[in-house]
Amino acid sequence: MTSPASGPGPVTVLVFLDPAFESGRLADASKPQLMVTDQGATRGDGVFESLLAVGGKPRKLQAHLDRLAGSAGLLELDIPAPDAWRRAIETAISEYRGPRTSAEPGTDEGTEEGTDEVAVKLLVTRGVEGTNTPSCWVQASAPGAAGRRQRETGIDVILLDRGYDSEAGERAPWLLMGAKTLSYAVNMAALRYAHAQGADDVIFVSADGRVLEGPTSTVLLAHLESSDDGAGGVRTVRRLITPQLDSGILPGTSQGALFKAAKAAGWELGYGPLEPDDLYDADAVWLISSIRLLAPVNHIHGREIGTPELRRQLTAELNALYATID
Amino acid sequence: MTSPASGPGPVTVLVFLDPAFESGRLADASKPQLMVTDQGATRGDGVFESLLAVGGKPRKLQAHLDRLAGSAGLLELDIPAPDAWRRAIETAISEYRGPRTSAEPGTDEGTEEGTDEVAVKLLVTRGVEGTNTPSCWVQASAPGAAGRRQRETGIDVILLDRGYDSEAGERAPWLLMGAKTLSYAVNMAALRYAHAQGADDVIFVSADGRVLEGPTSTVLLAHLESSDDGAGGVRTVRRLITPQLDSGILPGTSQGALFKAAKAAGWELGYGPLEPDDLYDADAVWLISSIRLLAPVNHIHGREIGTPELRRQLTAELNALYATID
Repeated sequence: MTSPASGPGPVTVLVFLDPAFESGRLADASKPQLMVTDQGATRGDGVFESLLAVGGKPRKLQAHLDRLAGSAGLLELDIPAPDAWRRAIETAISEYRGPRTSAEPGTDEGTEEGTDEVAVKLLVTRGVEGTNTPSCWVQASAPGAAGRRQRETGIDVILLDRGYDSEAGERAPWLLMGAKTLSYAVNMAALRYAHAQGADDVIFVSADGRVLEGPTSTVLLAHLESSDDGAGGVRTVRRLITPQLDSGILPGTSQGALFKAAKAAGWELGYGPLEPDDLYDADAVWLISSIRLLAPVNHIHGREIGTPELRRQLTAELNALYATID
Repeated sequence: MTSPASGPGPVTVLVFLDPAFESGRLADASKPQLMVTDQGATRGDGVFESLLAVGGKPRKLQAHLDRLAGSAGLLELDIPAPDAWRRAIETAISEYRGPRTSAEPGTDEGTEEGTDEVAVKLLVTRGVEGTNTPSCWVQASAPGAAGRRQRETGIDVILLDRGYDSEAGERAPWLLMGAKTLSYAVNMAALRYAHAQGADDVIFVSADGRVLEGPTSTVLLAHLESSDDGAGGVRTVRRLITPQLDSGILPGTSQGALFKAAKAAGWELGYGPLEPDDLYDADAVWLISSIRLLAPVNHIHGREIGTPELRRQLTAELNALYATID
């Protein structure tokens, strides 16, 4: 096993969940470890989670384990208990970080170059056809540089039709719209399409015109409303809004955690239905996800969202709130 | 490499396309050969084809290679030239079949137990993240017993909503609806849903009520119309119909080949739009695919299609036509 300090280039630490290894079975990710007949590879048949560890501590771990179990349930995949995942995740993170001479606490700011961040992926596939045994593993690697940059610079986004109407998920559970499956070819194609248009990312819109989600993120927007406070002053209501879940989107673990923190800090919370005009009219829009965290949206189809100052200010405030999350 | 004759249990022959090996690189499919970081496994990001070899000869090979290239193009995957695939396929089939003492020609009937059939799968993934090198391989294995049985017994089917309307594919190319991608989690979930209802298979219907396709097959139906032949006799017009391609379905290689043969044999051909009532009113309905071939549909949601005699007769006739295909 190569530790990240021992050589250049991208390094992935790999830990299989294996009943014979209580803390998970370390394997060499630089060598083939998966059967070509695994239905993860041949059918995209499985589920996953991506989470961030900061200072060695995985964030929102329970929320990710809960969502993994929910996704697996929708696909009728029997997966190991949360504790087995927790142990394998701990093994992967500590192996990735290597021997440390002193405790290095996580920083509150997850945005500085050199911050101790590890991207942790949990994967479950249906395993090799006929075996009825899911393949389960944890990967630890460095977060992508682009994502870290985009937290600072913000992103340009285009809206793309997701093809489904906003009621499809409710009437057709076999569409697996509440599950985070490995079948991400469409999500990846949408991102390639955006990049070809000079944009960084995508917000999917339903066939009936509702704002849904990003290919790998949740949509979040802020509305500030100033009103008379009844005593001659001005009162500003700050509202954080996200599309409602029953439109067939994935429940965002980061959005969920941020909403709790924002509520405690005096924000009002709102849940869709949202239309594209709600995005254009917002004071700020973000795509929020577990590894890239809050990426402020600068433009949608070239139209600026809010102002640079407002985006900067609100993003800093939400980043500070997000940093308080366990 | 284990040959199928040498031991019990399912055997898969694996051949990677590899520039260093002109006929492809044989690898042991019983051992891990794929990186866990391959985007086929982590994102269902890739394309595939399934075809049948009978008596050592792959059927409709050019059509499958054309569709593979088309799928790869839609996903912007740069894949090896057709000749490299042909050589790897030949290697996989001959390795699977093992040494033969005499030439064993393919039979016209693909339905007898013991017929020399090999299921051949071509796979392309986007490869390991960051390498920009697709993983390409060929698998040869035994066709499933269930599929062979269903050619004879027929299948019971339910209609399931595919969520997309029939124009989504045209307006949203990033949905990849004309590509045979590895992201098959929804197709597999639909089949599980059908099995839980006591059915064998699924016909997808668009959100706007158009008949689309099966999760792993093309829909085909037959209409017989008797009319006066103008000379005191009766003339029967036999029409073979399939949904039109622009509804966002995959072009069926088996349907395409069968249509050519049927036309030469005097059938009229028709292309949707089709609605569920067209299925219920048909004289016969089939799901046609490359490995299972023609599976006659006995019931849709419990309603019988045609009559047993009509289904048997028309299926036998189309099977005979199909057997003439290269």
